[in-house]
Amino acid sequence: MILTITAFERSPDGGRGQARDMRVRWALEEVGQPYDVRLVSFAAMKEPAHRALHPFGQIPTYEEGDLALFESGAIVFHIAERHAGLLPENANARARAITWMFAALSTVEPPILERESAVLLEGDAPWQAERLPIVEDRIRKRLSDLSRHLGDADWLDGAFSAGDLVMVGVLRRLNRSGLLDEFPNLAAYVARAEARPAFKRAIAAQLAVAAAASSG
Amino acid sequence: MILTITAFERSPDGGRGQARDMRVRWALEEVGQPYDVRLVSFAAMKEPAHRALHPFGQIPTYEEGDLALFESGAIVFHIAERHAGLLPENANARARAITWMFAALSTVEPPILERESAVLLEGDAPWQAERLPIVEDRIRKRLSDLSRHLGDADWLDGAFSAGDLVMVGVLRRLNRSGLLDEFPNLAAYVARAEARPAFKRAIAAQLAVAAAASSG
Repeated sequence: MILTITAFERSPDGGRGQARDMRVRWALEEVGQPYDVRLVSFAAMKEPAHRALHPFGQIPTYEEGDLALFESGAIVFHIAERHAGLLPENANARARAITWMFAALSTVEPPILERESAVLLEGDAPWQAERLPIVEDRIRKRLSDLSRHLGDADWLDGAFSAGDLVMVGVLRRLNRSGLLDEFPNLAAYVARAEARPAFKRAIAAQLAVAAAASSG
Repeated sequence: MILTITAFERSPDGGRGQARDMRVRWALEEVGQPYDVRLVSFAAMKEPAHRALHPFGQIPTYEEGDLALFESGAIVFHIAERHAGLLPENANARARAITWMFAALSTVEPPILERESAVLLEGDAPWQAERLPIVEDRIRKRLSDLSRHLGDADWLDGAFSAGDLVMVGVLRRLNRSGLLDEFPNLAAYVARAEARPAFKRAIAAQLAVAAAASSG
């Protein structure tokens, strides 16, 4: 069965792995599942053909035979359910790992997205200088709670899981903000994840797309 | 087995069902599972005892024997996995229903949360009048995509599922914004969900807490 995911033809981050296909590539690498990538342009993402796969006109999507999915969280979960390695076998531990996936996307990521909107879409607004620190304090509140929970553990709940994968994917959006460095155990947590061979293979694949795009 | 969830002792919305325990109550009512509720004050939510259940110091939480979960999305999913009625049996349809849960929380809710921050936390800011319409346009973009996908269907993908439950829970946060009324098929979709007996039982239970709090 051939799997196909979609990714940006030209990622706004230049392939540093902050686009959401990174989370899917990483999950597929963790479980050892080969995949194909179809690159889409910003214009093509808003066309009916892509919207039939992704109603919100975004990436990534996931096609496997007659199944088509969108949303990186849902795709990572789908991969984690069908392959060993990303969810614990114990039922309670599995439910907690899934909880961390939702916490990453639903509690930690929203203020980070708000900061991205502020930087990318309101960068020239007259309120930017005064407002950005307010938004960053909202992020600090979440990071502080997360840091307290993690303590000196390696991962959020026992062994590495899809919960860590999604959380690290979310935290890496802060890479150029300096915010993560205020919480050394979270910075170390992200570095620990980035040292995994599967992460390295996934980011190398993303960087290769960016390199091809910039030379093309 | 007794289930216990937590909810606000005094909900900021006066019990109109916009707090996230509503999604969990509704899911439990859909599957016919009785539950207990422990009310927590804003102060108690930030104490170590509650943080041991919810690292971010929020509601709802879910306790079932030796299992403790947080995050409304994760709890709804846990309920949907263990009881019939909220996820299709067909594997592909099930994966798509889960996709809609993630889409609601990860793509539709973030700009709605951004608007809540703007209204609740930046209401007196000098930029509010100029900025709020920008934030509302971000919401309109998502609602427009969602409206196009829904068309004249009753639910997002075939029969009512946990995907619809979470999506309606998210959309109901817009109740007092007027934004939903700009998309008649989405307003009808929410009304259709609110007419379900399980929804009515859940909101009655939430309103009863609010009534007791205001008379107490």
